[in-house]
Amino acid sequence: MANTQPVLIVGSMALDNVKTPFGDVKDALGGAAVYSSIAASYFTGVRLVGVVGEDFPDEHVEFLSSRGIDLTGMQRVPGQTFRWTGYYEFDMNQAHTLDTNLNVFERFRPTIPAEYADSQYVFLANIDPELQLQVLDQVKNPKLTVCDTMNFWIESKKDQLLEVLKRVDIAFMNDAEARELCGSYSLIKAANMLREIGPKVVIIKKGEHGALMITKDGFFSAPSYPLEEVKDPTGAGDSFAGGFIGYIASTDDISEPNLRKAVVYGTTVASFNVEDFSLQRLGSLTPRDIADRYCELKQIAHFEAIE
Amino acid sequence: MANTQPVLIVGSMALDNVKTPFGDVKDALGGAAVYSSIAASYFTGVRLVGVVGEDFPDEHVEFLSSRGIDLTGMQRVPGQTFRWTGYYEFDMNQAHTLDTNLNVFERFRPTIPAEYADSQYVFLANIDPELQLQVLDQVKNPKLTVCDTMNFWIESKKDQLLEVLKRVDIAFMNDAEARELCGSYSLIKAANMLREIGPKVVIIKKGEHGALMITKDGFFSAPSYPLEEVKDPTGAGDSFAGGFIGYIASTDDISEPNLRKAVVYGTTVASFNVEDFSLQRLGSLTPRDIADRYCELKQIAHFEAIE
Repeated sequence: MANTQPVLIVGSMALDNVKTPFGDVKDALGGAAVYSSIAASYFTGVRLVGVVGEDFPDEHVEFLSSRGIDLTGMQRVPGQTFRWTGYYEFDMNQAHTLDTNLNVFERFRPTIPAEYADSQYVFLANIDPELQLQVLDQVKNPKLTVCDTMNFWIESKKDQLLEVLKRVDIAFMNDAEARELCGSYSLIKAANMLREIGPKVVIIKKGEHGALMITKDGFFSAPSYPLEEVKDPTGAGDSFAGGFIGYIASTDDISEPNLRKAVVYGTTVASFNVEDFSLQRLGSLTPRDIADRYCELKQIAHFEAIE
Repeated sequence: MANTQPVLIVGSMALDNVKTPFGDVKDALGGAAVYSSIAASYFTGVRLVGVVGEDFPDEHVEFLSSRGIDLTGMQRVPGQTFRWTGYYEFDMNQAHTLDTNLNVFERFRPTIPAEYADSQYVFLANIDPELQLQVLDQVKNPKLTVCDTMNFWIESKKDQLLEVLKRVDIAFMNDAEARELCGSYSLIKAANMLREIGPKVVIIKKGEHGALMITKDGFFSAPSYPLEEVKDPTGAGDSFAGGFIGYIASTDDISEPNLRKAVVYGTTVASFNVEDFSLQRLGSLTPRDIADRYCELKQIAHFEAIE
């Protein structure tokens, strides 16, 4: 049997105001660490490090706890919780930010509780790369470190981000970000360049076009799950990465074939996430939901070998 | 053994002037029927129906013949051959047309030679949908009809194109065209709408993101072949469709699993095509080249099932 390991996740916890062509939500639970923790929680135990303000509703704390997420590392401090207000038009790949209020997140310094310091699986969700480096300084010899990022950090803190990339094992990035960071229109060239910077494995998120993983052994192309309607893409990348590392930690197996399975598990949970706003769908999955969709993806990607 | 069938291909034959960030060619062999015929010729016999002018070099005729392509249906008429002049910038998905001289193509009426009328496999390459309808009127009860098209016909001859879609078995379209024709941003919704118009099978070409096939049984997502550099994307869609129907005709098997294999064979030959200008790479493949890359794509798309 697999030697199931917990995963340590550090990142933002937020209250979001989101509008899409299919509706809107106000003060809805969000943030990269929340989406990725919930996604990972379907596979293994999660240790969450983040910060919320006095206004963060107890029901959200209870919901996270109910998913088995350890909140010892969640700081609750005076002030308001981080708030993001944005909207999407029909091109759901493009988030439009109307307002970002960092609030308590502005002075956040991640402190890894002593009992988390031995975490073998660490996910640095999308936050300031300086904070990601602080986390890396606090964990002892982890087996696998994974980071995510966004265009904002590529543009404002490129040097720190490059430093993070030198120190992690696996980097997630979307296609536009990979092209921007590497200054290459060719996604394949950009992916190879990213590997040369540091991470042994690069995973390019392509939204409706699936995902591409690059390792020393070559490429893995994962399909996306064909949805007629994406109601709210917020958290898609976070839940993808969370499902990915959650599955790996649950199996304690970082072999290349297992990384491929993890990409497909990530795809699976992310596809549920975008079916509704906030955590409304991602928060209520069953193991059967996940297994069934994984099998569907297997069928969608299947073709016969040459005889 | 498979009951290998020839494929009838009708479409444009051209001399192209193409410029990309990697170089340029002048008066180079091109045209949808040429690219698709050469691609299909690696799998089965091809019957080509098209038109060229007096200026069409003999060496191109010899080259087509050397690939076993039957040119009984190629008309050579007074005047100049169809010429397309265009360029690509770094976004290779977007062709920019500088000049289109229809020349002899302007008065082209496809005439299917009597000995081709029993063709079981028919590919209507990208031409005026009115001409595609004329071809459908001339073939006797084919086993499989396949069409391709482009945004120009969606905008200028939508009614005729819809008529073609009602009468063919399989329609190829790129993602932007499918969205435009169906007025839907969701590619999955657009693909399903296309199937409701008529074709039992729809194949969406997504360039660097691979292809998506929709049948009554569901979706098939094919990876693209990861190339660091695309030198010239001209003819990518044509060679994809040509490889697809060529493989199907060679096996005389229109089952869904075989359609999946055909999509991957189409992907394979198209990936070679974009490695160089005009027919410079596509024109000189070996069966081994094709088989090796098919196997690579199989490996690229592979992930394990749940135990």
